[in-house]
Amino acid sequence: MVEPELKRVTVTSDFWKRYQELVVSEVLPYQWAVMNDEADINMSKDPQKIEGADKNSHAVANLKIAAGQMEGHHYGFPFQDTDVYKWLEAAAYSFSYHPNPELKTITDNLIDLIADAQDDDGYLSTYFQIDAPERKFKRLQQSHELYTMGHYIEAGVAYHDATGNEKALEIAKRMADCIVRNFGTEDDQIDGYDGHPEIELALSRLYEATHEKKYLDEAHYFLQVRGTKPGFFEKQNEADGLERDIIPGMREAGERYYLDAQPIADQETADGHAVRVVYLCTGMAYVARLTGDETLLEACHRFWKDIVKRRMYVTGNVGSTTTGEAFTYDYDLPNDTMYGETCASVGMTFFARQMSLLETNSEYADVIEKELFNGALSGMALDGKHFFYVNPLEADPKASTFNPGKSHVLTHRADWFGCACCPANLARLITSLDQYIYDVKPGEVLSNQFISNDAEFANGLSIKQTSNFPWEGNIHFDITNATGETTQLGIRLPNWSKSNYSVTVNGTATQLEAKNGYLYVPIAQASTTIDIVLDMNTKFMRASNRVSADFGKYAVQRGPIVFCAEETDNDASLWQYEVSPKSETHYSFQPNLLEGVGTITVNAKLPQEDEDGVDLYTEATAEQLRDAKLKLVPYYAWANREDGAMQVWLNKE
Amino acid sequence: MVEPELKRVTVTSDFWKRYQELVVSEVLPYQWAVMNDEADINMSKDPQKIEGADKNSHAVANLKIAAGQMEGHHYGFPFQDTDVYKWLEAAAYSFSYHPNPELKTITDNLIDLIADAQDDDGYLSTYFQIDAPERKFKRLQQSHELYTMGHYIEAGVAYHDATGNEKALEIAKRMADCIVRNFGTEDDQIDGYDGHPEIELALSRLYEATHEKKYLDEAHYFLQVRGTKPGFFEKQNEADGLERDIIPGMREAGERYYLDAQPIADQETADGHAVRVVYLCTGMAYVARLTGDETLLEACHRFWKDIVKRRMYVTGNVGSTTTGEAFTYDYDLPNDTMYGETCASVGMTFFARQMSLLETNSEYADVIEKELFNGALSGMALDGKHFFYVNPLEADPKASTFNPGKSHVLTHRADWFGCACCPANLARLITSLDQYIYDVKPGEVLSNQFISNDAEFANGLSIKQTSNFPWEGNIHFDITNATGETTQLGIRLPNWSKSNYSVTVNGTATQLEAKNGYLYVPIAQASTTIDIVLDMNTKFMRASNRVSADFGKYAVQRGPIVFCAEETDNDASLWQYEVSPKSETHYSFQPNLLEGVGTITVNAKLPQEDEDGVDLYTEATAEQLRDAKLKLVPYYAWANREDGAMQVWLNKE
Repeated sequence: MVEPELKRVTVTSDFWKRYQELVVSEVLPYQWAVMNDEADINMSKDPQKIEGADKNSHAVANLKIAAGQMEGHHYGFPFQDTDVYKWLEAAAYSFSYHPNPELKTITDNLIDLIADAQDDDGYLSTYFQIDAPERKFKRLQQSHELYTMGHYIEAGVAYHDATGNEKALEIAKRMADCIVRNFGTEDDQIDGYDGHPEIELALSRLYEATHEKKYLDEAHYFLQVRGTKPGFFEKQNEADGLERDIIPGMREAGERYYLDAQPIADQETADGHAVRVVYLCTGMAYVARLTGDETLLEACHRFWKDIVKRRMYVTGNVGSTTTGEAFTYDYDLPNDTMYGETCASVGMTFFARQMSLLETNSEYADVIEKELFNGALSGMALDGKHFFYVNPLEADPKASTFNPGKSHVLTHRADWFGCACCPANLARLITSLDQYIYDVKPGEVLSNQFISNDAEFANGLSIKQTSNFPWEGNIHFDITNATGETTQLGIRLPNWSKSNYSVTVNGTATQLEAKNGYLYVPIAQASTTIDIVLDMNTKFMRASNRVSADFGKYAVQRGPIVFCAEETDNDASLWQYEVSPKSETHYSFQPNLLEGVGTITVNAKLPQEDEDGVDLYTEATAEQLRDAKLKLVPYYAWANREDGAMQVWLNKE
Repeated sequence: MVEPELKRVTVTSDFWKRYQELVVSEVLPYQWAVMNDEADINMSKDPQKIEGADKNSHAVANLKIAAGQMEGHHYGFPFQDTDVYKWLEAAAYSFSYHPNPELKTITDNLIDLIADAQDDDGYLSTYFQIDAPERKFKRLQQSHELYTMGHYIEAGVAYHDATGNEKALEIAKRMADCIVRNFGTEDDQIDGYDGHPEIELALSRLYEATHEKKYLDEAHYFLQVRGTKPGFFEKQNEADGLERDIIPGMREAGERYYLDAQPIADQETADGHAVRVVYLCTGMAYVARLTGDETLLEACHRFWKDIVKRRMYVTGNVGSTTTGEAFTYDYDLPNDTMYGETCASVGMTFFARQMSLLETNSEYADVIEKELFNGALSGMALDGKHFFYVNPLEADPKASTFNPGKSHVLTHRADWFGCACCPANLARLITSLDQYIYDVKPGEVLSNQFISNDAEFANGLSIKQTSNFPWEGNIHFDITNATGETTQLGIRLPNWSKSNYSVTVNGTATQLEAKNGYLYVPIAQASTTIDIVLDMNTKFMRASNRVSADFGKYAVQRGPIVFCAEETDNDASLWQYEVSPKSETHYSFQPNLLEGVGTITVNAKLPQEDEDGVDLYTEATAEQLRDAKLKLVPYYAWANREDGAMQVWLNKE
């Protein structure tokens, strides 16, 4: 029996093709120009900007200097190289749906440049190579060296997969070998870990590409040693010179921030810098799957539950505070002072994907869908050239300007960031979308996402999924089976459609119960059609009443899309509109608005606005409310028009 | 005709006598011990603490070093001296109701010490005298020198008034003379101002005590020059050496923080560090009254309206952000990330009192009452030995511990602060309470506060006010008139009782309409009794619907007292209780609770708490609510029992 290995999948969804082509036509050229300091952009509105920045990025120049092709000093963050690597990874994925010889010339040359920049021993981190060679691996709390090399390893594997470029993989292996040599429990090794997890997932990925077990062992080692070396960072800092911080303030961030207050096995909650947490979790799930380590698996379940069931916004965003870009505590989900970094949502899709590969449970793909259509996608403007680092659920330009506790919240996407982790991270997610559609397991194919696609499997199965999702919920599958062997096709039943769906197989209505969240249809015939009708009713969602910030508020969702109110569409202050689960709503698709979006109009209630400058506090009487229409647009599409306030959670009537 | 000048007033209110005696028995001795580094206190919970503090305060030691009585360096903030001066001022006022020879020996000796510490030219700021004599008046943005001397001038005037100690006044005059010599428009003078306003109100006060017009002129000059010298601070900083900040970070605070972005006459809104704003406003109102400057008067009205009608919490607290301890923008009143510094509430009473002296309008005394019974009083524990710097309207120990955006919010009062401006400021307010009860104007006496008292006036009038306020609203006045001349007695009709009150004069029910917020009764007979019955119904208050943070929420108020819910009294999470203006309430006085407080029980609604760790977001259905009792205590008395959450604004049903 041939297992149903995925041979090829092509995204055909109108919604996602637009984004995928946008990345090719706008995002990649734009980001390449920025990284080469050739873009005319405004860095001044960026709270993450580098003081006095007069360059776009210098990221490519740093590599050229390290390669001996240019003179000069390193500029930017110590992890500036990763912008290039994530961009390279995004470009590699794009070749699968948009062959592009011109771009490939650029990326092949970039691989050559990276090879030239790499030290003979495999080391590559331009900050240290150029300006601090004596400090390599000596201040791991702040250096991001393994994080940086990990990002290259990911890109190298992806580029090799996409193009067959052997040099790309060789660079990655030499890098990984350098790390394997330098880190471990031998006397001449560093028995420790990077401040920013990432290498764990990257080495796992390299193991999958090369089957060289030393890489998986090293990833496993990093996960096991983390938090077992009290004071590891402090000792390194002291030896390196306490006052010589590579990034100011990072010595004071605390163990919680670095996820090393205790061993992973002992840690109950998902605390610390949100992106680090989800990258670490991705590595944990990866290694748990590849090694069968039960302790890691338990930790994966524990962290997953803590994040998804207690610390995630309705849009999928995570990270409740700007200080340390971090998680705070269970059920603490303020909407206006939150962080919700784009990278953290991208990282959540990585974590969810690894969990989904590890075990069959639709809630992982539910979270991926939530991120794809909401929290992650919000990070990029419809033009592909403006980006959010922070994704609030409530914002107001006045607040961002005059309340310093909200100054990190932008109400329009920025041209670029001094710390530019997010734009290329989102680009690589969008170009690799095909990887999120199917999970393939022995004897079964799981269709995880309602993203129209054509797919071929090694066992002769072909699946063609078509729909107008996310705007319509009629999903059509055309399946051909060349061999006649039976494959179980599991189609994810989304959590928002659990109580309202129908399935038709070959024209016959069929009662199917979901198992682990999937509707299984055995595919044995040469040709099968399946039609799923999902629940596209507009819903008023509420948060657990353990969430104080959302108590007495409703969010509007339709299918996977979470909606929001924008000032530009509504006359009154957004918080003054009152809605209830019984409020009538009207959905319509507007092809000429925001590149084509569904909009929802809610029959809300509105009080007369109180006069300005009169008594602030008065005795309350029964509210006098009038009927008012509140217009909502998809959350991912906000802030693409004039600057103004936005709100996801609406006050109750 | 003899004008009704106030000769003597003694507070007899049970509520306030307790506080006034507490200041004598606990607060003053405790603070004196702290300032002499003799208290066993824990500074570690204090977000305003000085890094590595190993002393309580060192404030008295600094004076001794400056006086040549001790060796050593200055310790603490450059304005450390002001702790001593505010304490001295508080002590001075206390003599009027509690003669205290032991304390007077201490304070007389303190005056001698201060005189010894003062330079020959009148200068006194121990930080500069001890450790930076060459920098006097050279970095006014940060030095607080005029602020510091202003606080002595206030104390010196008060001490001279209370005790007749001439040396106390002489020190103040020599200080003021030093300032008059050094600041002005002559070539050899500094044409500028202090970063922290205070000297304006202090010099006005000294003028009232001495009738020396140069002091009033100097106060007026400081108000007129502020904001007319673009870059004044920056130029001083550059000349003094940019990197030599006296207080780190203060160069970056911005013009808005220092209230000198524009001349006072041009400024539309009350922006900047809240305490600085209200101290400046106090000086403005003082000088406007004493000079008749119409431009200043207009600015007073503008700032008053902006603060009281757009930027004040229902408890009277002001300052919406911890960053810069500042105002933010109109109607921005977040309850959980706010600042509401105790000093800002104390300063609001100063501003309100000056406005009340300037013109007859009960809204000034309304604000004083609001501060006295709520926002300011909250700054001190019932034991007189623990203090809030920050007064939130919503707090949770978990949030303060795990959400860094709320780490400035303590949920239990601290022993002391590195920057200890608040404790002594509150002490001087409480000991000077008698000054807030009456305004005396030609031919009339205005009774501003329902604080039981005995008062005598120069025109032979005696007023005895008795009540059990703030717990009961029956206010009784016994008035004797020795001369037979008619005085108009205006009794303030509080804003919370405007639509529900009764007046009985000499046993006869009398219909009286308020004029400028006062009920006027002509006092001509030898003996008059007046009984006012105020509206002591429990009220659900709402904020203007321009305030997003309070939309759909109610605060409970009874008389002047704003109530709050504390975790210790209630089983469910506080935000889960739902109330409406129609909710039944039950008031009862509990003599053994919190030194005797009125409590309110609200018949609220409560949902079943959602299970932990299940789906965070679910489709909303009609709420299932059960009846539940929500117990409320006065806001000023919160955080006097076990650590827990607190909330003023309650969610609506």
